[in-house]
Parts: sequence; C-alpha cells; structure tokens
Amino acid sequence: MKILALDTSDRPLSVAVLEDEQLLAETTLVLAKKHSQTLTPVIAESLQKAGLRPKDLERIVVSDGPGSYTGLRIGVTAAKVLAATLEIDLVGVSSLELLAANCLAQTDKVLVPIFDARRENVFAGAYRVKNGKLENILPDQHLSVVQLAEFLKGRDALLIGEGAKNYQAQFKELLAGEKYAYTAPNDDLPSGYLLGLLGQQKQPSQVDTFVPRYLRLTQAEVQWMEKHPGKDAHGTYVEKI
Amino acid sequence: MKILALDTSDRPLSVAVLEDEQLLAETTLVLAKKHSQTLTPVIAESLQKAGLRPKDLERIVVSDGPGSYTGLRIGVTAAKVLAATLEIDLVGVSSLELLAANCLAQTDKVLVPIFDARRENVFAGAYRVKNGKLENILPDQHLSVVQLAEFLKGRDALLIGEGAKNYQAQFKELLAGEKYAYTAPNDDLPSGYLLGLLGQQKQPSQVDTFVPRYLRLTQAEVQWMEKHPGKDAHGTYVEKI
Repeated sequence: MKILALDTSDRPLSVAVLEDEQLLAETTLVLAKKHSQTLTPVIAESLQKAGLRPKDLERIVVSDGPGSYTGLRIGVTAAKVLAATLEIDLVGVSSLELLAANCLAQTDKVLVPIFDARRENVFAGAYRVKNGKLENILPDQHLSVVQLAEFLKGRDALLIGEGAKNYQAQFKELLAGEKYAYTAPNDDLPSGYLLGLLGQQKQPSQVDTFVPRYLRLTQAEVQWMEKHPGKDAHGTYVEKI
Repeated sequence: MKILALDTSDRPLSVAVLEDEQLLAETTLVLAKKHSQTLTPVIAESLQKAGLRPKDLERIVVSDGPGSYTGLRIGVTAAKVLAATLEIDLVGVSSLELLAANCLAQTDKVLVPIFDARRENVFAGAYRVKNGKLENILPDQHLSVVQLAEFLKGRDALLIGEGAKNYQAQFKELLAGEKYAYTAPNDDLPSGYLLGLLGQQKQPSQVDTFVPRYLRLTQAEVQWMEKHPGKDAHGTYVEKI
C-alpha cells in the first residue's frame, strides 16, 4: 500500500511517503515559515523523490489533532482534498499519540506528549506501552500546566516534545521531589514515517465529515460565548433578531 | 553552530541542517536511485528550506563508515569538498554508532547495528548505553554472520537496521534458544538530525587526510593480493619490473 503521511499539527512539519512498512521519502522541517507555504511543495517533492504520482497513492494519513488551530486546518484540509480527489482512504491519527510513538521502547514509563497551547496551558495525553503498542491512559486534552502536574504526581513520566520544555521551570516547581524526565531532542519531533506506520493499523474515516480534533474552543468562540451565556458555540452563531 | 549532516553509508540517504541542538530541515530517502544522483540536490534543497546559504555553515558532519564502498566515497567526498571550500570543521561519526543511537532508550540491551555486506557477511559493532551515551563494546568490523552470532550468544541483543533483517533466517538458526530482538522499522534508518547531534560532541578531523573507514578490502584489492602474496594492498600497487 502506497501511503502519504503528513503532520502540521504543531510547529514542525513532517511529510513521508511509504510503501507498506518501507519508507521511501521523509522530510521534516522546523521553521519559522508557515505550514501554508511549505506543505504543498514538500508533498510534491516527496512524491517526486519517491518516484510516485499522486494517483499512485492508496491512503492518506494525517495528524488530526490536537494542536495549532491553523496548522490542523491546513493539514486536514490538504489530506481531505487529496483523499477525496484521488478517491482513496483517509486515516486520522492523534498528533499526541504520534509523539508518544517516538518512545515505544520506554516500556516502564508513562509517556506524556505535550504541545504548548500558550498561556500556561498545554495539549497533553498519557500513554503506556503494552505489547509494543500504545495504550491511552489519559485522553488527549487541553489543560493547564498545573492540572497536568497534578496528574503526573506519583508517576514515572517521560515528558515528550518541545512543548514540555517550554514549561521546564513550572514543572521543576510543581513536581519537586517527583520522578520525571524529558526526551532527547530527536524524540521531540513528529516523524512522518511513524505516522504512516501508525496509520496502517487504524480504520479509515469518512472523508466528507472528517474534522480535526481541536479539543478547545478558539479565542473567537470563547469571546462569543462570554457575550452569549447559555449558548453553544458549536450551535448557530447567527442570532435571531 | 550551523551544521550540515549527511549519511550515505548504506542504502538510505539522510541529510539534515541543524542550528545547535535544533533541527531546521531533515530529508531521508530510501530509494533504488544512486546516492550520486540524489545527494547534491538534497543538500541544496535542505539548505534552501532552512533559509541558509552554504557560507552560513560552520560544521560538516558525515558518516565515515563502515558501509557501502561507493556510498562512503560519495558522502565523504561531498563532506570534504564542502568543509575545505567553506574552511569549516569536518567531523566523522561511525555509521554504525549512528544506527545504535536510534535506540539510546534501550539501556538494558546490547545494541548491535548491522549493515548487510553481502555473501553472508555484515558490518557490525556492539554498543551499550551508559549515562545516556553510547559505549562501544565490540569495535565496528566486517565479519561473517556466523562470527557475529557467536558474539551474540549469552547477550540480550537488539539487532538494529535493515541489514539485520536480511539474515533473519540465519540468526534464527544460529541463535536458537538465545534472547535477542529486532528494531521496529522506524529505528532501522539513519537520521541526519541524530548525526548532527552526535557530531557536535566529537572532535573535528583534519580535512585533507580524512578518509572513510571502509573496514574491509575491496574485491579488486582482494584479487590483487591473491595474485601478489606477501604484498600489502595499501602499499604500492605498481610493481617494479
């Protein structure tokens, strides 16, 4: 099965082309540039390097969240357009599970992938390795650094990702006397190859109705709800007047 | 420090651009195409993506062997030309140590990176993780699958790389009843990023005299020595007549 895998859920971008379990081409970028500028050319180059045309692809795998609002929209939109146009399977994988998968060898630790969600908040989940696979023990969610630290107490945690390192000072204080560690820099980044491998083990989604799992409201939604107490931000935004 | 790291020592090619411990761009290819065709464009694209010009680089890191004879010549030649032209540091890293570094989390195992050297022979070494760093316990060398299996007996070994999997049938027979395991596919490939990280911890080499560590004679050298018993293949090839 020929697969295109792409992750733009956080600051890095990773794109890979696989044939079954074999990597053909992978590119990972960590740049100030916007994913909207880099994603399409990287996809085109990766396919060209792998000697494939888009119509050779049989499955698209995309990190479907949580993460950057704009990053997720770009990645998921690109993935949906490709899957719909080529009439092939679309598979979503948790962007946090993808980070945790960097550390599958750490069978004795609680794996805690962390994205920085700004303002002392993070996106995080917790995973354990069982029979070589990841088992979720804390669902991916948007929570404060303080809340996450509470969960981590008494666990031998491995904090994964660049996001974790942004809050080192806070964790040092909140987790004084606790056992926890950070990943080496090369385990902080998402791997398109690993995404493609994970996406082969999961069921495809319905392309039309596929949406990112943002796991929090946008700032605009929060403000709208503050102004309209009692209303659901995911209901109608248009007030009857 | 701005670094270009490149590995063409075996079938995969990996090129990365780093700034200190931060990855900017990495591309890894596993193709039937020759490294001679792909290396130069991938270096140019990686620099361009990272927003750097060659003259911005401060260090070149290259896998210096063992591995494919032609692959090593291409990688080391490119690295030497770049380092000499730009008048910057050149650092060589063992291509087997680079593979072993994929498994730094496996602190309880003997890490055994393996390249297929054809005809039931391999390039292999053995490493242990001590204080988060790799410690060599069997020097990188060219040896038969039978010799390597002898070394592995009684050790809890992790066999790393695509090369290891080419001899699965032989290891199954030679290591019956022994404890050993293979890496997951994503730990089989060299990472240019990891190469760049390793190359920051090592001393630069003298550019002019830098040569790959082939660790075996070429077929031509073997044949020459068979015809010229008692002579050193690395001495003069030109016979006085």
